[in-house]
Amino acid sequence: MTTLLQTAPSIAMIDAAAVRVAGHVRRTPLLRTPALDALAGRPVLIKAECLQHTGSFKYRGAKSAITALCEAGDVTGVVACSSGNHGQGIARAAAEAQLDAVIVLPADAPAAKIAAIRAYGAEIVTYDRQTGDRDALAAQICADRGFPLVLPFDDPFVIAGQAGVGLELVKQTAEIGVGNADVLVCCGGGGLSTGIALALERGAPGLRVRTVEPTGFDDTARALSGNPGPNAPGAKSICDAILTPAPGKLSLPVLSRLAGSGLTVTDAETLRAMALAFAHLRIVLEPGGAVALAAALSGQLVGTGPVIAVATGGNVDPGIFRKALDCLDD
Amino acid sequence: MTTLLQTAPSIAMIDAAAVRVAGHVRRTPLLRTPALDALAGRPVLIKAECLQHTGSFKYRGAKSAITALCEAGDVTGVVACSSGNHGQGIARAAAEAQLDAVIVLPADAPAAKIAAIRAYGAEIVTYDRQTGDRDALAAQICADRGFPLVLPFDDPFVIAGQAGVGLELVKQTAEIGVGNADVLVCCGGGGLSTGIALALERGAPGLRVRTVEPTGFDDTARALSGNPGPNAPGAKSICDAILTPAPGKLSLPVLSRLAGSGLTVTDAETLRAMALAFAHLRIVLEPGGAVALAAALSGQLVGTGPVIAVATGGNVDPGIFRKALDCLDD
Repeated sequence: MTTLLQTAPSIAMIDAAAVRVAGHVRRTPLLRTPALDALAGRPVLIKAECLQHTGSFKYRGAKSAITALCEAGDVTGVVACSSGNHGQGIARAAAEAQLDAVIVLPADAPAAKIAAIRAYGAEIVTYDRQTGDRDALAAQICADRGFPLVLPFDDPFVIAGQAGVGLELVKQTAEIGVGNADVLVCCGGGGLSTGIALALERGAPGLRVRTVEPTGFDDTARALSGNPGPNAPGAKSICDAILTPAPGKLSLPVLSRLAGSGLTVTDAETLRAMALAFAHLRIVLEPGGAVALAAALSGQLVGTGPVIAVATGGNVDPGIFRKALDCLDD
Repeated sequence: MTTLLQTAPSIAMIDAAAVRVAGHVRRTPLLRTPALDALAGRPVLIKAECLQHTGSFKYRGAKSAITALCEAGDVTGVVACSSGNHGQGIARAAAEAQLDAVIVLPADAPAAKIAAIRAYGAEIVTYDRQTGDRDALAAQICADRGFPLVLPFDDPFVIAGQAGVGLELVKQTAEIGVGNADVLVCCGGGGLSTGIALALERGAPGLRVRTVEPTGFDDTARALSGNPGPNAPGAKSICDAILTPAPGKLSLPVLSRLAGSGLTVTDAETLRAMALAFAHLRIVLEPGGAVALAAALSGQLVGTGPVIAVATGGNVDPGIFRKALDCLDD
């Protein structure tokens, strides 16, 4: 797929993806609670994408890409590289289409993510995050099996699927009369923020995407501000899902045109956001899924108007979740 | 209110309650995941009422009762006795109606519940669960202030509000083609199970309510089986929300007519259900909110057809949640 189209999806592709995934993807609720409004000093609307099938938005893009592959012709399996959530999305969507799936994962991926991928029947191949060459490994598997690679973000069909979050936000914000707001979106490669930005451009032009990254992995924020370049070597974060080295090739032009300046949050702010989501929203967020809420609560945004935070995933090991709970008084 | 009508609500009252609370109560999603299906050996549908405003279904009944009070005439405040969730529902609904609220709580209620009630601006009066006389205390406050008491379950307007869960289940099960199933519902006084049973009787007669209680507090199960009587003294359970001494007066006749036999689960089964909801549904359940899912996973139900578990609340202190996480491998 990805060798054919090297641009972000058109709005027609986004609409076509929505048709393909209808009845499969779950429309996730837009939550709000007075406690978080009070902490932020403004209305905070949380798009609870942790309630999506497989526990993250990644199923949307995976379902879009795999249904497109199946429509396009003979395919018997797929390969994907993933920190865990894209792999779960691909594994589930492949199983639904009765395709084989091979997921290439870092050996230190969260145990919950590895177990879930296995439960969907996918084959798992691991590599060392420090020393391995993930892309070479995946390319070899594709060549050996004759399966296409489904990239996690630099694939227009994947981005078109993630755009579904934006299509839902268009409707959900109209229902509650919110026409102007920043939409905070976690950003690894930028596929989700790009898809949302494209959907909002047509449907809700007063809503503006702003990417959120962990401190030390703000490659997108810097690229958007005109200072691109690699992240500092040796940076660490608990946000395993969004630790990418650079913005996606398809994403950056769209985000440069449509997104506001990028935001960053510390791991401490992220753990607190996970704790507050537990206490006040009764949802489980993983670190990468909590950065947008962390940014909404961080005090960096000016004004008192509504802000929307996309809570992108909830696949977290108990050990990290216990650390988040330590932010709360018992 | 409760002195005027001493029977369960009519279906007309249930429909009227639905009109009064429309636009306030959140329609909660019906979740499903392959991992829990596999554990139960059948489709398990989870009504995620922990995502309701205030973190439990209790807001439905509270909103119904308080809007009915406001329609009926002059009222400036309300009093409620609660283990914490009914109190949160009343506190929020009272604040929305600009009424005062006084909530009578056991001194050992979960800190999260006490803090949330206070955040809604309600006044809190505590009593000792072992030695205090809650009802006398509440009656005195009502007399002193001139406020009506809103009972947690033996109030037809409250039951009519809880029935909203059943009205939503009628639509949601029709959408997915489920016409026959047990609907497992946690049971303290039985207001929720009664409301759901009445809504299903009209809209989905193939769905049958079955109450779920913690071991040692199975007063409803025994009453339904023809052996009523008090629970053994000294029984303990982590399910603080549903530790009632006897079925509600309005509930028992309805449940005797419409519900199947009652189920019980151990605290260990409840903690495991909380852990599995964390891992596979990414929702936070409190012990009392997890007993129905625990029953669905317990192996006590025959057959392989779908089962519906109402996950009624998610207001839980971190300490208990950590115990649940201990059920998972890190």
